Amino acid sequence: MGEFELIRHYFAAASCARGGEGVALGIGDDCALLELPVGEQLAVSTDTLVEAVHFPASADPCLLGQRALGVSLSDLAAMGATPIGFTLALTLPRAEPAWLEAFARGLDRMAQQCGARLIGGDTTRGPLSLTLSVFGRVPAGQALTRAGARVGDLLCVGGCLGEGAGALELVLGRRQAVAEVAEPLLARYWSPQPQLALGQALLGKATAALDISDGLLADCGHIAAASGVALSVEQARLPISAALLELLGEQGARRCALGGGDDYLLAFTLPPPQLAGLQAAGWPVQVVGRVEAGQGVRLLDEQGRSIAAPAQGYQHFGAAGV
Amino acid sequence: MGEFELIRHYFAAASCARGGEGVALGIGDDCALLELPVGEQLAVSTDTLVEAVHFPASADPCLLGQRALGVSLSDLAAMGATPIGFTLALTLPRAEPAWLEAFARGLDRMAQQCGARLIGGDTTRGPLSLTLSVFGRVPAGQALTRAGARVGDLLCVGGCLGEGAGALELVLGRRQAVAEVAEPLLARYWSPQPQLALGQALLGKATAALDISDGLLADCGHIAAASGVALSVEQARLPISAALLELLGEQGARRCALGGGDDYLLAFTLPPPQLAGLQAAGWPVQVVGRVEAGQGVRLLDEQGRSIAAPAQGYQHFGAAGV
Repeated sequence: MGEFELIRHYFAAASCARGGEGVALGIGDDCALLELPVGEQLAVSTDTLVEAVHFPASADPCLLGQRALGVSLSDLAAMGATPIGFTLALTLPRAEPAWLEAFARGLDRMAQQCGARLIGGDTTRGPLSLTLSVFGRVPAGQALTRAGARVGDLLCVGGCLGEGAGALELVLGRRQAVAEVAEPLLARYWSPQPQLALGQALLGKATAALDISDGLLADCGHIAAASGVALSVEQARLPISAALLELLGEQGARRCALGGGDDYLLAFTLPPPQLAGLQAAGWPVQVVGRVEAGQGVRLLDEQGRSIAAPAQGYQHFGAAGV
Repeated sequence: MGEFELIRHYFAAASCARGGEGVALGIGDDCALLELPVGEQLAVSTDTLVEAVHFPASADPCLLGQRALGVSLSDLAAMGATPIGFTLALTLPRAEPAWLEAFARGLDRMAQQCGARLIGGDTTRGPLSLTLSVFGRVPAGQALTRAGARVGDLLCVGGCLGEGAGALELVLGRRQAVAEVAEPLLARYWSPQPQLALGQALLGKATAALDISDGLLADCGHIAAASGVALSVEQARLPISAALLELLGEQGARRCALGGGDDYLLAFTLPPPQLAGLQAAGWPVQVVGRVEAGQGVRLLDEQGRSIAAPAQGYQHFGAAGV
């Protein structure tokens, strides 16, 4: 048995590779087989992370495994889908048992947290990169797309913005901070929590949704374009955490909140009558703007005047980022 | 719009990216949405191809696109599944329009041939590699797995063996041949035809199946292990094409037929009463051996005596192959 076949057996033994609901056949045959309850659709998303482009070469493998799956599952959250499983295509230069053990541990942790099973994949030799495809189920016709926002809806987000981009300053060693500031930010970066429960709670309520991966303004642009509407973002309403303010000051924090990527929080549009019920049920729904007639995204000051967006606060890791 | 966003738009415009049966939502949102007819299961497989490991750096991009998708769809054929769609995660060092145009053309050609739609993916910068996930549908409980072979079944293959490995000699420039020898072999290598129709015809008839990617003997070992049986392969019954014989001579051709990879033909086990009907219907079913009690794979000479398998005829492209 070659070293790469050994790796396959290694992943096949992880607890998240045991069958689960919706998985009729898991790892080990030519294909996995998934089952869907009658009346549901399958949501599918694929993401690639490349070493030195999307994560530093020195990344802790356990944190990397955790983050890679969390980021991918966030796309299911954005549709309101419930995870079933995922495939992992892992390309790596050599088989290092300690690295693999830690990577599989991080992956398994996130998989267990989110109820996703490892159902297959491929392991090849080459420059380090990961491609994950995630699979979830969602009631037919109810998935949250980017295309349903209506004039008059509120624009909302699922938590404090900008922390992914703020944390990247720490990850890259560009800034340092005391533990009480650094720890929550680094946790958000390395262990992004896909807002799966929130996405499911928004089914039948939100009119459009996505997860913020390119920065609030850029991602709002996707909703505006797909829905054929304009979105306005009120700068004064941006939710920003104390830790991010402490790390970057007001201006830097705001720049990350508007243009920073890697947040993996949901942004969504909500008819106003839905707001009170969601907030009363304890969902982290923060209003940051509204849907208007027109096109594109406008940033407003406290007096409701259009202002220029700050220069992009966000860059993917590494100079070659795309 | 960055160059990589342009690429995404480029693929989104390919004809195979237009919606089709089973695709409720294609490219452009956080997830694609697939639908399954009631009573069917979804078959999923993921494969990665890395430059200089699985294909030469100089590979023609149109042929590469065609081959990458053909190889992946072969896993659906092995389960008896009907293709719905696929995702493409493409990592490449830079965006070269001519390369991309040709790659997308080859991909599109194979997608159209096989009825598979491009439903999503990711485009990232980095060393050239492709990860494809393919999705198909199959009647619930009827998928052909590796696990059902029974003592007394015939061991069959779907065509002439060893051509993928033989062609690799030409691809790598280790051998040359006249056009009438080279062309059919190179076509098998660059445009592998997944045996989708054969796989579907075997539903309810074959007891186990897979597609030959690692060589007949190695892949028969997978059926034997999963089914808890032994398989015997009769050397005299190996179907070998005139082109391969011409290129490699009898011994070389046999070595490729037994140990060569990259054939992407189906190997399957069949209760003897099923054989005549399939052959009468015109399916390319060749008996090469049978299922016996025991474990492992035996190679038999014309007198039915066990003989040693020839040294492995097959290596993935490149010294670093895995």
